[in-house]
Amino acid sequence: MGTVGFIGLGIMGGRMVRNVLKAGHRLQVYNRTASKAEGLRGLGAAIAASAREAAAGADRVVTIVSDPPALSAVLEGPDGAFAGCAPGTLVIDMSTVDPATSQAMAAKAQALGLRYLEAPVTGGVGAAEQGTLTIMAGGTPEDFAAAKPLLDTMGKKVLHVGPMGHGSVLKLATNLVAACIVSAMNEGLVLAAKAGLDPAMVSEVLAERSPLIGRTAPRILAGQFAATFPLRLSHKDTQLALAAGRQLGVPLFTTGTVAQLQGAALARGMGDLDQTATIQVLEAIAGVSVRKRDA
Amino acid sequence: MGTVGFIGLGIMGGRMVRNVLKAGHRLQVYNRTASKAEGLRGLGAAIAASAREAAAGADRVVTIVSDPPALSAVLEGPDGAFAGCAPGTLVIDMSTVDPATSQAMAAKAQALGLRYLEAPVTGGVGAAEQGTLTIMAGGTPEDFAAAKPLLDTMGKKVLHVGPMGHGSVLKLATNLVAACIVSAMNEGLVLAAKAGLDPAMVSEVLAERSPLIGRTAPRILAGQFAATFPLRLSHKDTQLALAAGRQLGVPLFTTGTVAQLQGAALARGMGDLDQTATIQVLEAIAGVSVRKRDA
Amino acid sequence: MGTVGFIGLGIMGGRMVRNVLKAGHRLQVYNRTASKAEGLRGLGAAIAASAREAAAGADRVVTIVSDPPALSAVLEGPDGAFAGCAPGTLVIDMSTVDPATSQAMAAKAQALGLRYLEAPVTGGVGAAEQGTLTIMAGGTPEDFAAAKPLLDTMGKKVLHVGPMGHGSVLKLATNLVAACIVSAMNEGLVLAAKAGLDPAMVSEVLAERSPLIGRTAPRILAGQFAATFPLRLSHKDTQLALAAGRQLGVPLFTTGTVAQLQGAALARGMGDLDQTATIQVLEAIAGVSVRKRDA
Amino acid sequence: MGTVGFIGLGIMGGRMVRNVLKAGHRLQVYNRTASKAEGLRGLGAAIAASAREAAAGADRVVTIVSDPPALSAVLEGPDGAFAGCAPGTLVIDMSTVDPATSQAMAAKAQALGLRYLEAPVTGGVGAAEQGTLTIMAGGTPEDFAAAKPLLDTMGKKVLHVGPMGHGSVLKLATNLVAACIVSAMNEGLVLAAKAGLDPAMVSEVLAERSPLIGRTAPRILAGQFAATFPLRLSHKDTQLALAAGRQLGVPLFTTGTVAQLQGAALARGMGDLDQTATIQVLEAIAGVSVRKRDA
Repeated sequence: MGTVGFIGLGIMGGRMVRNVLKAGHRLQVYNRTASKAEGLRGLGAAIAASAREAAAGADRVVTIVSDPPALSAVLEGPDGAFAGCAPGTLVIDMSTVDPATSQAMAAKAQALGLRYLEAPVTGGVGAAEQGTLTIMAGGTPEDFAAAKPLLDTMGKKVLHVGPMGHGSVLKLATNLVAACIVSAMNEGLVLAAKAGLDPAMVSEVLAERSPLIGRTAPRILAGQFAATFPLRLSHKDTQLALAAGRQLGVPLFTTGTVAQLQGAALARGMGDLDQTATIQVLEAIAGVSVRKRDA
Repeated sequence: MGTVGFIGLGIMGGRMVRNVLKAGHRLQVYNRTASKAEGLRGLGAAIAASAREAAAGADRVVTIVSDPPALSAVLEGPDGAFAGCAPGTLVIDMSTVDPATSQAMAAKAQALGLRYLEAPVTGGVGAAEQGTLTIMAGGTPEDFAAAKPLLDTMGKKVLHVGPMGHGSVLKLATNLVAACIVSAMNEGLVLAAKAGLDPAMVSEVLAERSPLIGRTAPRILAGQFAATFPLRLSHKDTQLALAAGRQLGVPLFTTGTVAQLQGAALARGMGDLDQTATIQVLEAIAGVSVRKRDA
Repeated sequence: MGTVGFIGLGIMGGRMVRNVLKAGHRLQVYNRTASKAEGLRGLGAAIAASAREAAAGADRVVTIVSDPPALSAVLEGPDGAFAGCAPGTLVIDMSTVDPATSQAMAAKAQALGLRYLEAPVTGGVGAAEQGTLTIMAGGTPEDFAAAKPLLDTMGKKVLHVGPMGHGSVLKLATNLVAACIVSAMNEGLVLAAKAGLDPAMVSEVLAERSPLIGRTAPRILAGQFAATFPLRLSHKDTQLALAAGRQLGVPLFTTGTVAQLQGAALARGMGDLDQTATIQVLEAIAGVSVRKRDA
Repeated sequence: MGTVGFIGLGIMGGRMVRNVLKAGHRLQVYNRTASKAEGLRGLGAAIAASAREAAAGADRVVTIVSDPPALSAVLEGPDGAFAGCAPGTLVIDMSTVDPATSQAMAAKAQALGLRYLEAPVTGGVGAAEQGTLTIMAGGTPEDFAAAKPLLDTMGKKVLHVGPMGHGSVLKLATNLVAACIVSAMNEGLVLAAKAGLDPAMVSEVLAERSPLIGRTAPRILAGQFAATFPLRLSHKDTQLALAAGRQLGVPLFTTGTVAQLQGAALARGMGDLDQTATIQVLEAIAGVSVRKRDA
């Protein structure tokens, strides 16, 4: 099955890597904060001291980090993965970045004699854990075919959506929809709570509109804002979507409004909380809480 | 099982009534446009010439019409259902109206010695047909208990959500979420289409975010804008939600933006098309179509 | 010069009436809160006990009240001005209402054999005091000609803008522009303050953009939020503009966003403060104040 | 009076430079498109072949170009102004850029032993021509004092608003206010036109709200969309303001909505038209024109 370099062990990567391990791959892992890698040692993974080291001798390298600068940091430079890759190695980036970043990184990889596939994911923490993510790959058919067996260990729906950049666009599209759903849910919850309805009842009915509401509304009601998807990253994606809209000439009114609401929550220091924490801005303005403990 | 007066045979009512008939109730139906009632004659329903006549002799009366003025038209006045009801009759309004309208109608019913329950529904055309609607009733526990067996013939999840008005608020909350999801879907679809992605692929991935997207995106791609939920009514609900937000002191930024986008589509004469027709405004601005035939 | 019935002595009316008095008209004044009329007694005005009494024997009747229901209250019913008017009396409504209200009131006046002109004003408290308002009249050329000498005592630019309803539309248009300017000013002030700039310097530069900013920004910086134009009324006008936009098929995205920001301030109980108080919502979110005393 | 290098002869710079000439300064001018410089030859200006050449031997260098990349292009690199400056030369950038760009350029200048002042302007084409601009300088008091006599030839209100970056923030604040005013004007004009009012009358009344409306509305009504401030640049500034809002933690809801409306106009290819061209998007949606020729 060969050796896989796996770089990025955050909320998503830390769960996805376990499914790669379970499938029997030999793994060399690296994370900027080294402590997050420790738990994998016992499962048989080799802990690398740099992205370069994680890539050395691997035939496929997976990266999943938080944003374009973080991606550049693990791929480029003397300690980056590119520097460690043997010619012809397939680099698979599963981060959420903008299409221009994917295209730029792919061009750099190609110039170095490497292969590159973008393969961002959706489905959240639960799907990452269970290996049932949706994976939206952009790149050549050959690189997709070469990556597919590995991607199948992490995802249930593994799609080749088009050439380089198309995977990122689709990821941004699905994330803007998610951000808008969260914002709409917040408005529905707060409106109903202010009218005196039981938030649990409201939450149950709104959950029919979206599995994302089904997963997140009960956590909001319980006051659980530990991030499964941090507001900081959701806002980053919303901004990338708006930037793509600008470049492509597609006005995104709903997304633009949601971006400002997220900005309001960020201004209040909520970046590391879950993306649903934006509801607290609305609650503060409306003078009501949807949480039992605060009622 | 007694006799049921059923008033309003539109997109939803015309489907719901069949499940009431199947359950063995005796039915007296009325619709403003009489032709829509004809098909029920063969199924055993009596066709009434007025809302008053439909209510005469019934022990329960169901109304499901398009908005507050339409509700007033079928309940009040010399030919209205209230005039036909025997004392103690239970009137169940399943229309989507604002809480103030429900409260006003309930007060009028009470003054006439009648009982009144609001019971708006969600789930769309499919659930109306299959009798699997979610029904959100507001009113007294006694009236809810009296209505429940009848409501069970039309819905799968039949909830008593609180006193009079709470059903309407919850309905408005769930509909504002739906309107925002449609708007977000439109933005995601058009963004990805302009970037060159295959809309069918995008549609499939976005469908994971919401069953509403799963039902409506394929219709959009096929150019089917015949209304399952007309834009005119969706906009009416969005406006009622914004009005409730004003009265309750809950700003609804996302919903407010979506209301203007719906207004833009209405300005182009799309009121009788499906609520998803708002995508055509975005497509016109962006200069791209997500439909094969137009591509 | 004849006798003028003057109904409504609020922030605007209370100042405008003095210019009518100064011009030598005989005046019969009425205000719901009687105490506001007292100061005019010494200036020679007769204090009426009802709107009807203020209209009795007058050849022209001026109304300037806060909104459509208040207008209906002073014009209609047994104690309303219509009941006191002799046939042929010219009623001039200077309130800000929607075109449909103007048209409905004009029709009622006509049915009673009265003449009716809508003549809303702009210019703020200062212009009301100095008799330099801009007055936008809608109605017939004859009624406008008959009203003009009286309107000239209150305004500098007295325009006949079209048939009944056109005056209201123009007033709503100019007020939506004002509301958006206030909102833009707030964003500019808070952005610059958060960056560390001196708000007084910012205020001076932004004032070049609009005399409204020139008048209001220094008051904001001094913490003076006593209403010259209450947020409650500004929000009412914004809502009337949005309603007109819906009826006419004109989406108003900017105004719609401003309406939600105003709603946020109303939710915090600021309705009786000046319309500029919306800046406090933004300051609370951004965690900064543009006022010296709070800095 | 010394020698001034003047780089950037666009809509603004091309007018401002004439006032510098009139004041008696020796001038070395450079523009990327050389033809724009030709007209100045007869007025005594030396035409430089590069930004570097324009800076050579000058004791003060003025730059006024369209955006951060254009600024970098004329200042940096082997042919840039920095390369031509003698040690201690004062570089005055009058472009509209973001504070981070000003700070970065100032740091680079300092590293090269140069002095740097940001001094963006407001007032439009007319004020540029008449030398009555408002100039908002950021930098040290010493550099401001050294630049003031030169700035006085171009502006009427020449302000030192704070340290490096503060000038840019204030410029972004005043431009976001302008963009919102234009958007509000558009909404008021189209609403009133759809209601049947004479746009010229509406334009006259709205002009009281802002001199910017007074300057631009008549041009819109005459169908004149040749840029005095191109939409492309206005949108660039709006985006810089939103970016500053994100960095500083200030949500800008109104500006965010206006940015999407500008994006809609850009999507229709209007970037080189005046910023007021956004009204055409609204007109297209509403199905009405405010221009006589199109009526």
